[in-house]
Amino acid sequence: MSTLRRDPIVGRWVVDTDKLEPLSTTLQKLGNISAFPKCPLCRGSEGDTPPEVFAIRSDGSKPNTPGWEVRVIPNFTAAMRVEGNLNRRPELMYDEMDSIGAHELVIGSPEHFANLVDLPEPQIAKIFRAYINRLRDLKKDMRLRSIFIYGTYGKRALLESLPHTHSHIIATPVTPKLIKEQYVGCRTYYEYKERCVYCDIIKQELRQGKRIVTENDGFVAITPFASRFSHEIWILPKKHSCDFENSPESDLPWMASILKEILTRIRALLGDPPYNLALFNGPNRNGREGYWLTIEYDYHWHIEIMPTFTRPEGFEWATGFYINDTTPETAARRLREVKL
Amino acid sequence: MSTLRRDPIVGRWVVDTDKLEPLSTTLQKLGNISAFPKCPLCRGSEGDTPPEVFAIRSDGSKPNTPGWEVRVIPNFTAAMRVEGNLNRRPELMYDEMDSIGAHELVIGSPEHFANLVDLPEPQIAKIFRAYINRLRDLKKDMRLRSIFIYGTYGKRALLESLPHTHSHIIATPVTPKLIKEQYVGCRTYYEYKERCVYCDIIKQELRQGKRIVTENDGFVAITPFASRFSHEIWILPKKHSCDFENSPESDLPWMASILKEILTRIRALLGDPPYNLALFNGPNRNGREGYWLTIEYDYHWHIEIMPTFTRPEGFEWATGFYINDTTPETAARRLREVKL
Repeated sequence: MSTLRRDPIVGRWVVDTDKLEPLSTTLQKLGNISAFPKCPLCRGSEGDTPPEVFAIRSDGSKPNTPGWEVRVIPNFTAAMRVEGNLNRRPELMYDEMDSIGAHELVIGSPEHFANLVDLPEPQIAKIFRAYINRLRDLKKDMRLRSIFIYGTYGKRALLESLPHTHSHIIATPVTPKLIKEQYVGCRTYYEYKERCVYCDIIKQELRQGKRIVTENDGFVAITPFASRFSHEIWILPKKHSCDFENSPESDLPWMASILKEILTRIRALLGDPPYNLALFNGPNRNGREGYWLTIEYDYHWHIEIMPTFTRPEGFEWATGFYINDTTPETAARRLREVKL
Repeated sequence: MSTLRRDPIVGRWVVDTDKLEPLSTTLQKLGNISAFPKCPLCRGSEGDTPPEVFAIRSDGSKPNTPGWEVRVIPNFTAAMRVEGNLNRRPELMYDEMDSIGAHELVIGSPEHFANLVDLPEPQIAKIFRAYINRLRDLKKDMRLRSIFIYGTYGKRALLESLPHTHSHIIATPVTPKLIKEQYVGCRTYYEYKERCVYCDIIKQELRQGKRIVTENDGFVAITPFASRFSHEIWILPKKHSCDFENSPESDLPWMASILKEILTRIRALLGDPPYNLALFNGPNRNGREGYWLTIEYDYHWHIEIMPTFTRPEGFEWATGFYINDTTPETAARRLREVKL
């Protein structure tokens, strides 16, 4: 049984486990991943994965057979499992609980594309639809406080082990530290200003223009004022919304369109770097009272994209103090100037 | 002029600059680093570096000539400079200041060793002595609130660009976010328990034994309860001390000895992985009043060592929620069992 352990100084939660097999080992068992065609995420390999928890199938095909357009499966090796109780407890002076949670893989296409940018816009919109479906389902579980979506793409990075476009949904019974800080930051700003900090950022950036990369009817993409990484980009819905899964269906094409445009600009300007993509969403307030309920309207869901030219130095992850060698104003200008 | 910018949501400070040349570019100008012998950090290359700010020279040799044992120079390309005023100011709704600070390189040996573990114990003790000297000097500057020491070693990592054992001293006019969280965590624990949290950890770990890697008269090395990384190790002084630079001279051999032992155990067990080493120290209280002064006795300086087998996934740096595939109990047992 894996345990969730709390750092006694800074309060960070960590999953500590001895039973977790690295993904690469599991995949090696499934066959030599580097020798295609035997990718376990491709159409036709449905039997090589855990049974799907959700799929978009417009042709009415049966679960775990070909015919899907986007497919969601439990991760091959999960550090958390859904069954059981949290069993929060002290461990002498420390704090721990059982590692309850969910870790799912969202397979972005039945074809063997490595990079999200290669998918057509309607396919990207289907991935967003799959996220919405899973978020609505997972938020019914009152034990799960936080659900986080992320992916790593590009020609290096994790793709060496699994070069088929996919992303992760991780649902945890505790709110991860850096996500909680966003909630608390939004709340603090709201208490002081009675406005959403992200809404204020959007208004100011649109007026000033120098950190705008692109915009459409639904969304705006900016290089944030205090960018940690060179060419870091945030995509924000223009209309305030705490919960991504409540996005109207009419927003999905705008969402897919701005994401594809941003990824295309990054590739054209920066030579196809690997990048991380994270979707930050409001907390699960289902069955929760008090504090979390009060911040129902404070948070503003958004996507952050971080090209990873270099691994963060020891300095940066140890201190949380980043040194970025491209100002966001320069990055936004260069990204805007890309000819599409 | 580089600026220090504050993230408006979580309060993280970032140096954003367009003028910073990557270290690898600077070094390429100095000559082809991969074609030795023309390492700018070796004995005899003193003219290829910025003039030294400190050196240990037992032979009475002159600055910027051979004869040094440990040498401290300003970094080749610094994101911060010492001259000037902070000029704290608003930038519309945001906050920024000039990027005042110091970034120094501590060259660990005149010989071309890449890895700290290859240095003899007395040489490692001299590196600690150099840190103490620099900390005492930098803490006289009331603008500098935080001084952080770190290094990256091993056969991959940054060494590809500069494979000569060195570490960094970074002094900043703001307290980096994750360091501040340690201070606040210590303070909170102290207010509740009237004891230092690190002292409590040491006492409990020594009694229980299962996360102890090794100890000597001055220090204990543990795998922390909520380890973020596989085989993460903390080295803590047994006697409570907030400020590393106040360490008695008699502690330096113990310090060097436990560090060399830990690095030797890591290399023997794990096959010479790259690793980060960070020295977390108390804040600069010189000329400061109020809050920081009150925590004078709460913090407990220590060293953290993180072997870096994998780069942190997008998930981990975006959320601060880590998944570690080796429990600290297993890691400590394996490290203890190494035959030296």
